[in-house]
Amino acid sequence: MRPLIHGGDIYTPRDTEEPLCDFSANINPLGMPPEVQRAIVEHIPDYAAYPDPLCRDLRGALADHHQLDAANIVCGNGAADLIFRLVLARRPRRALVLAPTFAEYAQALALVGCSAEHYPLKRSRDFALDEGILAAIEPGLDMLFLCNPNNPTGMPADPALLQQVLQRCRRCGVLLVVDECFVDFMAEETRYSLCPQLQNQPQLCILRAFTKMYAMAGVRLGYLLCGRPALAEQVRATGQPWSVSTVAAVSGIAALKCQQHRRQTVLLVEKNRRLLTEGLRRLGFTVYPSMANYLLFSAGDTQLAFKLAQRGILIRDCRNYEGLQPGDYRVAVRGESDCRRLLAALHQEVKR
Amino acid sequence: MRPLIHGGDIYTPRDTEEPLCDFSANINPLGMPPEVQRAIVEHIPDYAAYPDPLCRDLRGALADHHQLDAANIVCGNGAADLIFRLVLARRPRRALVLAPTFAEYAQALALVGCSAEHYPLKRSRDFALDEGILAAIEPGLDMLFLCNPNNPTGMPADPALLQQVLQRCRRCGVLLVVDECFVDFMAEETRYSLCPQLQNQPQLCILRAFTKMYAMAGVRLGYLLCGRPALAEQVRATGQPWSVSTVAAVSGIAALKCQQHRRQTVLLVEKNRRLLTEGLRRLGFTVYPSMANYLLFSAGDTQLAFKLAQRGILIRDCRNYEGLQPGDYRVAVRGESDCRRLLAALHQEVKR
Repeated sequence: MRPLIHGGDIYTPRDTEEPLCDFSANINPLGMPPEVQRAIVEHIPDYAAYPDPLCRDLRGALADHHQLDAANIVCGNGAADLIFRLVLARRPRRALVLAPTFAEYAQALALVGCSAEHYPLKRSRDFALDEGILAAIEPGLDMLFLCNPNNPTGMPADPALLQQVLQRCRRCGVLLVVDECFVDFMAEETRYSLCPQLQNQPQLCILRAFTKMYAMAGVRLGYLLCGRPALAEQVRATGQPWSVSTVAAVSGIAALKCQQHRRQTVLLVEKNRRLLTEGLRRLGFTVYPSMANYLLFSAGDTQLAFKLAQRGILIRDCRNYEGLQPGDYRVAVRGESDCRRLLAALHQEVKR
Repeated sequence: MRPLIHGGDIYTPRDTEEPLCDFSANINPLGMPPEVQRAIVEHIPDYAAYPDPLCRDLRGALADHHQLDAANIVCGNGAADLIFRLVLARRPRRALVLAPTFAEYAQALALVGCSAEHYPLKRSRDFALDEGILAAIEPGLDMLFLCNPNNPTGMPADPALLQQVLQRCRRCGVLLVVDECFVDFMAEETRYSLCPQLQNQPQLCILRAFTKMYAMAGVRLGYLLCGRPALAEQVRATGQPWSVSTVAAVSGIAALKCQQHRRQTVLLVEKNRRLLTEGLRRLGFTVYPSMANYLLFSAGDTQLAFKLAQRGILIRDCRNYEGLQPGDYRVAVRGESDCRRLLAALHQEVKR
């Protein structure tokens, strides 16, 4: 079996009596907005029929939300679905991804026989994107995946550097795929997101998710904003017609109306990220700066994830990320009592 | 845009005041069982987390249901998802499909650069599978898709012939993919399904759906039963890890307990299929024999789908099926009053 390399495995039975607390998946600690829950229930009579393959209502709502044309938008069965469909639609021969970054880009590239090239981010610079990336963008490169803010670091690209990346991709004919699945957790989202510039950038597409902010990971919904409508159509036509369930479509439409929920989440995440950062530093760990709803830290102990799991706490062991090593861990920013439980458990493990 | 070639398009606005009645998608007329609806609502607290990529609970329930090992089962985002993942996993160079048959096999094959070869079913034999198929199964052929009962005809393969097909595929090293998405609508399911033989047939896999029988098309859930566990694992590892939503997984588990709903459906479909067949024949149409919850018929009028749509009734125009022609239509078997409405509307069109 291909091993379960991702976080969020709350399903494997564990030998503990403690209630499970999952820091390994980066889901909004406020949970799914009640409006989304209500929409799921109210639309039950609609689930017997096939979904609209064109997701017209949802794409209309997204077009309003992002002030874009609906023709630039394609929806998917979670953002991960769109990574695969985009790669299948484009079949790049050469593609560049960061190291470390989300593993599915390389998985999707492998499916079309493309071995991902890695641009190594420097630990000494807190894994921030640096200007060296510009030289790595060259004619003959087909695709560049930039995760912004990056996963698992939570570090966003400097906006000025991102502009240079965008220009260089355009000049070199490289499709720039910016994964903004966590950008809406940032207080300064508008400063870091490329969405406002999309319409005039044929070389750009932006991946976004509902799963994290609106705690809909079990419902599955993501979307891709494409600078060129033709690219959106190409991705839509790749794979089955009904990848987005009606449940997901009605949930997404309801979620877009929950902007107060989003603002509360941003404030909560900011506060508890500080709490976690300070607590982890006091324990002697190296904590990398993050602006997302998760944190990367390094501990001397390479068995920490295993030990915490025995206490009912799941954290993401990052050793299988290209560019990271044993002792690197990612934790989600959760509610205050959960964060304190994590810190207390870590304190007991460090004391031992 | 790739045109919407399938039935079930209830989303395109139509210029009619009549309530919409959709005969173009083959969904159980009894609708989604209340137990499935309840399961969707009860599990709302579970939808914030990522789904189990291994679908362990659902596969366990399916293993019990089919008396198979869970290792032989892989679940997908509707049966259509599994057609694409199977083809991507196997990358056949030569593949054979029936004509007419469900269009997604050829669509999926095209994605891996494989041009589907067609085995033509004879109109003069009511599009039944005939022994000529045996000669078409030869060494060098990688994959054969058999839809059983076939879509859009509703005609199942003769069980004795199917055994010969199975043996010949095994001898020639051809992967036989039997799409049984509608087999559970048949009164004699056990006579026609290959499920009981699966465990000893490494060359066989069987596609099944929840979407039709349990009216879950908007939820999306299908599964593939594989003679070899290694094939199931290969299909699972192709594409994103979370293709099956938690909503779908809990719905499927609840649906498997609704066998009384299934038996009622079979009886209702049998009764109303007879009603429709006789009504259509009285109107002078050629109706092909079907054992599924839909019927293929031929009318002289090639504009019938358009005319009925103006009355709020959707039927499936089959002219874009390989092997069919303008004037061929498929209608789902719905509830009695809907069937009578369809027949009355057709009567008025024929009288004109």
